[in-house]
Amino acid sequence: MLNRVRSAVAHLVSSGGAPPPRPKSPDLPNATSALPAAPPEKPRSPPARSRGGSAAPAKTVEARASFSRPTFLQLSPGGLRRADDHAGRAVQSPPDTGRRLPWSTGYAEVINAGKSRHNEDQACCEVVYVEGRRSVSGAPREPSRGQGLCFYYWGLFDGHAGGGAAEMASRLLHRHIREQLKDLSCWSSQKEVTHESLVVGAIENAFQLMDEQMARERRGHQVEGGCCALVVVYLLGKVYVANAGDSRAIIVRNGEIIPMSREFTPETERQRLQLLGFLKPELLGGEFTHLEFPRRVQPKELGQRMLYRDQNMTGWAYKKIELEDLRFPLVCGEGKKARVMATIGVTRGLGDHNLKVCSSTLPIKPFLSCFPEVRVYDLTQYEHCPDDVLVLGTDGLWDVTSDCEVATTVDKVLSAYEPNDPSRYTALAQALVLGARGTPRDRGWRLPNNKLGSGDDISVFVIPLGGPGSYS
Amino acid sequence: MLNRVRSAVAHLVSSGGAPPPRPKSPDLPNATSALPAAPPEKPRSPPARSRGGSAAPAKTVEARASFSRPTFLQLSPGGLRRADDHAGRAVQSPPDTGRRLPWSTGYAEVINAGKSRHNEDQACCEVVYVEGRRSVSGAPREPSRGQGLCFYYWGLFDGHAGGGAAEMASRLLHRHIREQLKDLSCWSSQKEVTHESLVVGAIENAFQLMDEQMARERRGHQVEGGCCALVVVYLLGKVYVANAGDSRAIIVRNGEIIPMSREFTPETERQRLQLLGFLKPELLGGEFTHLEFPRRVQPKELGQRMLYRDQNMTGWAYKKIELEDLRFPLVCGEGKKARVMATIGVTRGLGDHNLKVCSSTLPIKPFLSCFPEVRVYDLTQYEHCPDDVLVLGTDGLWDVTSDCEVATTVDKVLSAYEPNDPSRYTALAQALVLGARGTPRDRGWRLPNNKLGSGDDISVFVIPLGGPGSYS
Repeated sequence: MLNRVRSAVAHLVSSGGAPPPRPKSPDLPNATSALPAAPPEKPRSPPARSRGGSAAPAKTVEARASFSRPTFLQLSPGGLRRADDHAGRAVQSPPDTGRRLPWSTGYAEVINAGKSRHNEDQACCEVVYVEGRRSVSGAPREPSRGQGLCFYYWGLFDGHAGGGAAEMASRLLHRHIREQLKDLSCWSSQKEVTHESLVVGAIENAFQLMDEQMARERRGHQVEGGCCALVVVYLLGKVYVANAGDSRAIIVRNGEIIPMSREFTPETERQRLQLLGFLKPELLGGEFTHLEFPRRVQPKELGQRMLYRDQNMTGWAYKKIELEDLRFPLVCGEGKKARVMATIGVTRGLGDHNLKVCSSTLPIKPFLSCFPEVRVYDLTQYEHCPDDVLVLGTDGLWDVTSDCEVATTVDKVLSAYEPNDPSRYTALAQALVLGARGTPRDRGWRLPNNKLGSGDDISVFVIPLGGPGSYS
Repeated sequence: MLNRVRSAVAHLVSSGGAPPPRPKSPDLPNATSALPAAPPEKPRSPPARSRGGSAAPAKTVEARASFSRPTFLQLSPGGLRRADDHAGRAVQSPPDTGRRLPWSTGYAEVINAGKSRHNEDQACCEVVYVEGRRSVSGAPREPSRGQGLCFYYWGLFDGHAGGGAAEMASRLLHRHIREQLKDLSCWSSQKEVTHESLVVGAIENAFQLMDEQMARERRGHQVEGGCCALVVVYLLGKVYVANAGDSRAIIVRNGEIIPMSREFTPETERQRLQLLGFLKPELLGGEFTHLEFPRRVQPKELGQRMLYRDQNMTGWAYKKIELEDLRFPLVCGEGKKARVMATIGVTRGLGDHNLKVCSSTLPIKPFLSCFPEVRVYDLTQYEHCPDDVLVLGTDGLWDVTSDCEVATTVDKVLSAYEPNDPSRYTALAQALVLGARGTPRDRGWRLPNNKLGSGDDISVFVIPLGGPGSYS
């Protein structure tokens, strides 16, 4: 994902100069040690509540090592070094022991080919227990386990311009969701609002609160860069897939592909970005125009007619070129090279509060949205078999692998294992990561068809849908 | 549509008092007499060009009678009185003569049951000739018929708070589209832009220019109220359906329903409206909150937690009620009763430049968008039969008639006529209008199932798709 932020690192530290060493969260009293891997059978007990009001989640930020991988990988110091090796690019998966991820979820990852010092992807997989809130109307809250509920949680976080935001999100976002879901127990009194829309709202709010926490803590704790976030919540028969960024989730069901997310890039979000630039021209700092042109307008074209698109338009029309149109376009470039303000290629995610336009003090954050799009899949509406899976991947996978190719690999790998073999989903995740990475050949990583493999960090979850928990 | 604007008429005249009698456009030199019905075989010759630059269409505003109907109805003074009779509500169609609308298009309309003095719907059906522009780069334009092209055009305009905007749009919008399409001849030099996207852009721009013209001329010419606009353009094998408002277009093809538009209401556009209120709080005048609550918040609930939705959210979450949340919600009500700023129930369309919030000077126009959504249907991708039709209707039809009921009527009526009988589409339009109006019974207009018929103005176009022009 580093390529997505052009020269942005230089602007990350508003105080200027090299980033200071990361402090051990001295001002956060609730700091805990590293989270253990989630026990699949036993839900996590909730940590101590914060005193900061009902909306604030537990503010637990732990001391960060200079490089960390998901705790469920259970990497030894030696394993950590191998995972950090750009030359070997060894595929990492949780150890094949009796203690598996919930639902026997498969996971695999590989570091980039040298784009950034460390793997800036992060992942999280947890079973989270939510205590009920007694009342919404200010009555005292009394902890009571009987009112609670559990959700299953998977998160992929693709960092850019540093690994801090992805790491923080992987440790805390599910806690924000847990805090928001505490209100679910009060639902019955609001008949016009569906249970599903409350879960969706809880996830949406949690993303915003996570982003706000990053903004608050960025100075003290050096939350570097930003990250895309792709999150799955399973609760009461429904799968909620929340996406903010350019990771992707698809369900492969009986060979059929069901898209569960869409990517948010300068191209797909052109109209939202242009609208913001149009309504708040001060955000463009006199340097950019919110209008789009098929190519950069030249000064000699002043007064001539040229094609353009405004925020309300899906088609192209002509306008007479004015002085303002000579400014750099807010959205420019195509495909993977599309950029907002010539800087960033992804338009939703967490963090990036310090990100500035190259060679400028203009902040980019106002154009980035932390809000996810949430899609809901009712697991009870279909009788899933053990070969039906939800595949989550960062753009390292999808840059070189189509949905159809993933579906083919799903079929090929899973059919080679017994349906009740719990290791088949990790084997599938590994096959997907390997298929996107390729093998070293001709001074690069190459796929079997000799095209370039992905040099990006690659992370994949494979979540079996054939009966939650039945394979764990 | 009058119900959609609550007490808005009182606010229409910014000078206060009763509206003055409509002037005969004394300051527009190009004023012409009433447009004749379009000759179906022979394209209209273009009127004289204006001198106001290439983007300005011919500014022909004619003297308006106090009540007018589409010229293609060819109503005599007596016929005009019958069309204006709220008690009889006679269905109006073009006379069954040899001179039909293009493609043997069917049309029928009926006045409302007393909601407004006159029928505030308007309609237009034309064959429009577009002269080519020689160059986009400032070279002199030389009229040359050889460079031109023709498009077929149908428009339905559902006025509210007066008939002026609908009438003006029905007479001028296609001319704005024609002016925009003149640039099409320069297309080949811009390979990255498709022909289709240029037509879409031309239509989008034309809507905006029409709206701007209404704003400019509202003082001198009393452009009353606003209107929804549903427009169809047929050009070079493709049907473009542009919708701004709550009219609807569907294709019924071999019994299958293909939606060709969606409605723009405070409910469907909630997030756009909220975003605008959030980014430009001054537009809310301290009277409204951009947040949505399931019900009106009471002062006694201050400090308590309540469900809400913000502009980025599709789900509901909880927040602590603050003083600002006690303001009236920007979007309130449900279904047909949903309103923006407690005033208007439709969020896209033309005009409404004088519309104010009830008992306030707060303008509503910034929340209304004049931009249409344009859907494209490739007529060449399917072999259409004479029973395949595109049905356009104002909300008077759709308020009491489902898409499926329309499809049933299409089948029933068309199968009663020979496939080559050109009067079958008018018969179908009449049947649809009659089916929505009902018959007078029990002190109201009732449908066969005894439910209330539509008391609104009802207008319907039926456009046959089975070979453009083959039935004319």
